[in-house]
Formats: sequence, C-alpha cells, structure tokens
Amino acid sequence: MKTNIIPLDKKLATDLQEKINFKTKPLGALGVLEKIALQIGLIQNTLTPVLSKPTILVFAGDHGITKTNKVSPYPQEVTQQMVLNFLNGGAAINVFCNQNNINLKIIDAGVNADFETSSTLINAKIAKGTNDYSIGKAMTNEQCLEAIQKGKKLVKKAYSKGTNVIGFGEMGIGNTSAAALLMSYFTNTPITNCVGRGTGLNDEGLQTKIETLQQVYNFHKNDVKTPLDALTAFGGFEIAMLCGAMLEAASLKMTLLIDGFIVTSALLVANALESAIVDYCIFCHTSGEQGHKNMLNYLNVEPLLNLGLRLGEGTGCAVAYPIIEASVNFLNNMATFKSANVSEA
Amino acid sequence: MKTNIIPLDKKLATDLQEKINFKTKPLGALGVLEKIALQIGLIQNTLTPVLSKPTILVFAGDHGITKTNKVSPYPQEVTQQMVLNFLNGGAAINVFCNQNNINLKIIDAGVNADFETSSTLINAKIAKGTNDYSIGKAMTNEQCLEAIQKGKKLVKKAYSKGTNVIGFGEMGIGNTSAAALLMSYFTNTPITNCVGRGTGLNDEGLQTKIETLQQVYNFHKNDVKTPLDALTAFGGFEIAMLCGAMLEAASLKMTLLIDGFIVTSALLVANALESAIVDYCIFCHTSGEQGHKNMLNYLNVEPLLNLGLRLGEGTGCAVAYPIIEASVNFLNNMATFKSANVSEA
Repeated sequence: MKTNIIPLDKKLATDLQEKINFKTKPLGALGVLEKIALQIGLIQNTLTPVLSKPTILVFAGDHGITKTNKVSPYPQEVTQQMVLNFLNGGAAINVFCNQNNINLKIIDAGVNADFETSSTLINAKIAKGTNDYSIGKAMTNEQCLEAIQKGKKLVKKAYSKGTNVIGFGEMGIGNTSAAALLMSYFTNTPITNCVGRGTGLNDEGLQTKIETLQQVYNFHKNDVKTPLDALTAFGGFEIAMLCGAMLEAASLKMTLLIDGFIVTSALLVANALESAIVDYCIFCHTSGEQGHKNMLNYLNVEPLLNLGLRLGEGTGCAVAYPIIEASVNFLNNMATFKSANVSEA
Repeated sequence: MKTNIIPLDKKLATDLQEKINFKTKPLGALGVLEKIALQIGLIQNTLTPVLSKPTILVFAGDHGITKTNKVSPYPQEVTQQMVLNFLNGGAAINVFCNQNNINLKIIDAGVNADFETSSTLINAKIAKGTNDYSIGKAMTNEQCLEAIQKGKKLVKKAYSKGTNVIGFGEMGIGNTSAAALLMSYFTNTPITNCVGRGTGLNDEGLQTKIETLQQVYNFHKNDVKTPLDALTAFGGFEIAMLCGAMLEAASLKMTLLIDGFIVTSALLVANALESAIVDYCIFCHTSGEQGHKNMLNYLNVEPLLNLGLRLGEGTGCAVAYPIIEASVNFLNNMATFKSANVSEA
C-alpha cells in the first residue's frame, strides 16, 4: 500500500534545540517536555509550533470471536452500550476530553447494533462485527480496504477543519484478542507473551484466551504473508480503520497521539507499511495490559505516562494531552536568559 | 513542635471504592487515577470531592554556601533574577500555571536582594540569604521558627480565600545542597548518594560539591539532635518556610502537591515532626536530580510522573495537576454501569 509519509525533515533541529536551550532553565531541565517540543517543532517544521483543534477519534467495532465466550468476561453487547455511553457523555473519555478541551468523535466502524442517526456518532460501519477468526478470516480484503479508506477520510475531514493534533481511541469487546494476534505477527513474539487479561479475565479465563488465540494463530499463519493479510485475518474493523486514520494523519504531517494496547496494534500494521509514521507519533502511556510495554519496546519508543491505565477509549491520549500542550507552551512562551536578564551557568 | 495533623479517617474508604468500582470501566482500569480519587475523597471526607482554587506557592531564598562557589555553576544573583522572571511571567512555572489555571504566588523567603513593592510578590524575607553553613549554622533558631510561622500564615491565607489544593515550589541557587544535607540526616543516607548535579554541575564540580557537603555534614552532625536542629543548621529559609506551609496545609486538610528534590526535603522535615502529613500529599513527579527517587522510597510513596524534570519552581506540580483533576472528574462525572445501562462482567 502506497503512502505519502516521509521521514521527518531534521533541518530545523539545531535551531529548535538552541531555542530550547536558551530558555530560562538549566540545560535539559524540562526533560521529556523538551523532546516533545523538538518533535512537534520538526513535525510542523517551525520554531513556533501550534496545537490546533485537538481531536480524538474513537473507533468502535465488534468481534466475531466473542460469540465463543472464550476471550472476554463481558458480553458483546457492551460495545453497543458503551457507544451509547459515549454519546451520552458518561464515559471516562468524555470526562477527560471535556476537561482538556479536546474534540471527541465516536465512529461506528462495525458495531453489532443499529444506532439512531445522531450528530455525535459517525456511521462508518463496515459490517455488524467481524467474522469469527477461529473458523475463517475476520473480514474480506475488500472490507479491510474499505475500513482503511474510511479511516483516512475521517482524518482528512478533521484536518480540513483545522485539526493538527489527533488522538486515537477504540472500543470493542474482544479487541485485545485481535491486538494480541497482530502483536504476535508483527513483533514475532509468542502468543502467550502477547495475551493479557483485557477487561479483567481471571487466571482460568486468561489460560482459555491464550489457548484459543494460539489455535487461531496456527490456523491462519500460513496464509498471512503481508501486513494487510494480518489485518484481514484478525481484524477488527476498528483496528483497520485506525490504521487508515493513522496513515492519513502522518501523511498530512499531523501530530499523532497513540493510546494503549489496541491502538498501538493498529500502529504496528501502519508501521509495517511505512515505518516513518513513528516520527509523527507521541506515545501517551504504557497500558496496564500485558504486551503493551513490549510493543513499545519493539517500536523503540518511550511513553509519556505510566499510570496503570488499561481502559482504552483513547483515555491515555486525553490524560496526557496537557503535558503535550505544556511542551509547546514552554517553547513558545518562556523567556530566554537574554530577554529576562538571567545570568547563564 | 506540636501540629494539628491527624491521620486520614478511612471510614469512607469502602463507599468511595464502591463508587469508583461502579463507574463504566473494568475494575481498576483507571489505575493510579483511582488511587488519587480515593485519597482526595478521604482527605475531604466526601464522596464528591472538589478541587477549589488550586494554588502554587513558590518560595525563594539564597544560601550563604554559594559564596564559596563550590556547589553550583550559577552565581547567587540568579535567584534574584529568576524571581524577577517569575514576576514578569517568563519562567516555566508561569507558563504551566497559566495553562492549567493555577494561582501562582511568589514569596521572598530570604533572597539576597531588595525588590520593589509589587502585588505579585509576597515579602516574607527572614534575611538576605542564610549564613554559610560551612562555618556556622545557616540560621538562628528564631529565624527558623519565624520562617515556619510565615509559611503557615501564607497557607492560612490561601485557605481562607477558598484554596483546598496547594502545590509547593522553590527557587534558590544552592538549595539542592541544603536539600542533600537534610536528606542525608533524615534518611540516614551517605552524603555521596544524596548529592546530585543540581542545575548542571560537571563531574569535577559534582566531586567538589560532595566533598564540601561531607565536610559540612561532619562539622554539624554532633549538634543536630532534632528535626528543627537540622533545618537550622542547613537551611534554607525557603525550605523552612515550605516546611511550615506544608504543616499548616495538612492541618487544614488540604491536598498537598509535592514537587521535586528540594520540596521533598522540606517534607522530610515535616514528616519527622508528624508523619501523618504524608496522607495528605500527592507526589507529583520523580525529579531527574539524583537522590529524589531515594527520598520517595524512604517515604514509601509512588510519584505520578517521571518526565526527567529537574527544574524546581513547582513545575512538577503544575504539569501533574491536570492528572489530579482528571481523578476527581472521573469520580464525579462518569456514569455508572446502572445509570448507563451497561452490562457488567
């Protein structure tokens, strides 16, 4: 799949670092905030970057595998119920986006329910949930490409309205399973090290999930030869749509805010298509879901926060956003040693 | 020294935990945010805590030891210059407080300069810097008690104006040295493990700082028998005032936001006077200054952030504040499984 993503142009790096160093603080004293400021300056190719109309897109989808009751303690209906909770403003992501002035868009990528028409829900449904991948592919090639295209289109629209920083979230009962399968494929890690407790499996449930997904992996492995083969085999629709959305966001030189385990699994697909995408990503937190830390290690990146969050929805992006703002704000608004008449070391 | 600080009353803990558990998220999925919500609920003794008029007090003071040029790469004048930078809004703490709607108060606890009268600077000066503790005590007992009383009074005033969450910051060239001496005394740690690079000493400078402070410690150790003896011997005025401010804040059942190495050294003094103070503290970040992590270990607490900040000024509190807000906001504003009609596991 062709992308327009190019590695970051580093020609402003020296000037940006000098601007950071001349601020009234000891060299390097703002730690990671300095790295983020430099990165966003390079992404926007300016010494005065601006974060404009921050937006989080939450993609929701259902997974055929949940019908086996082998991967999640919650019933599939919870995906639909949580989408309604998002629309009513009652979920954690609503609370955190309200607090931090982040636009929130909910996208039905493939929930097994019919929703009433609404101004707050974007209908991009591919189908009412993926197929059960224990007996076949999660989706067809056409569905996979359609999901990617729809994801791209949604980001294009946000960009056209002035958004230049975009976070990604998801909701989908069973989607830690798809993410674990994708992780195993892309990072070449045994299934057992990719599978976690998701929404809260006990030891027995975790063992069943591992065994189920090991069988699924074995069932598909000879047919999976490309990144899109993996996405098609394991799903879900929300992950495919996330992948398209991320590819488009990086093509448009937006700053991408990466959430937890499932969102990062979508990035693993995008990264396999074009590894330069990582230059545009800020990794907002390490999820409490086992496996996420190893995903981040595989990508060779450091997350901002480690608060034990394991909720998805893009909550890690929303909670981390003020720290990203702080990075841009110090770069633009702090005095320099010279302007403040402060002696240097 | 008598305090009115009492250990947290835990009788609401079960009800608070139940309220947290019934929110529309898997059990424990908001990680540390859940712990913070519980703590603030207990501090305020309510199921619906509110963060009111958040304020950061930045105490500035000078240190006689800096005249020896053995502990900091920056000249003493930088304390005064940075105070002016605070007053002009050009420092990192200004930028972060502006961003996060935090009231910022700058207090001259003992800067070696005369400032013009100003509405933004609180004059609580004890003296124009402490004495050089390599040849005598940093301050007199009377000065120490005066500083503590002035710190208490400032917090009382903020409280009377409606503040119930208060962060602590500092500025003072040389004050990582006083903090290292206090750390060594209170945590019984060898000086060499308490001393860091401060604003940016090189290897040679670090070695000189260690040797200097080891001599200082040996010079005083037989005379230091109480927490206030240590504060009097090592200073500084800003640290003593911080100690008083913290004691008062916990007496008033406010939520205390603890910043980095120097602020935590003031807490070590307060903790030695009344260890229940820790119940009221949120540890905002781990400083990049060597020693801070061990201080936090000594207090048996976990910090929220680890962003490599080592700037002081209360910047760690200001940057962490939105995460603390998020904790209270989810507790108050998220839907429950029941109210949102979401199925449980």
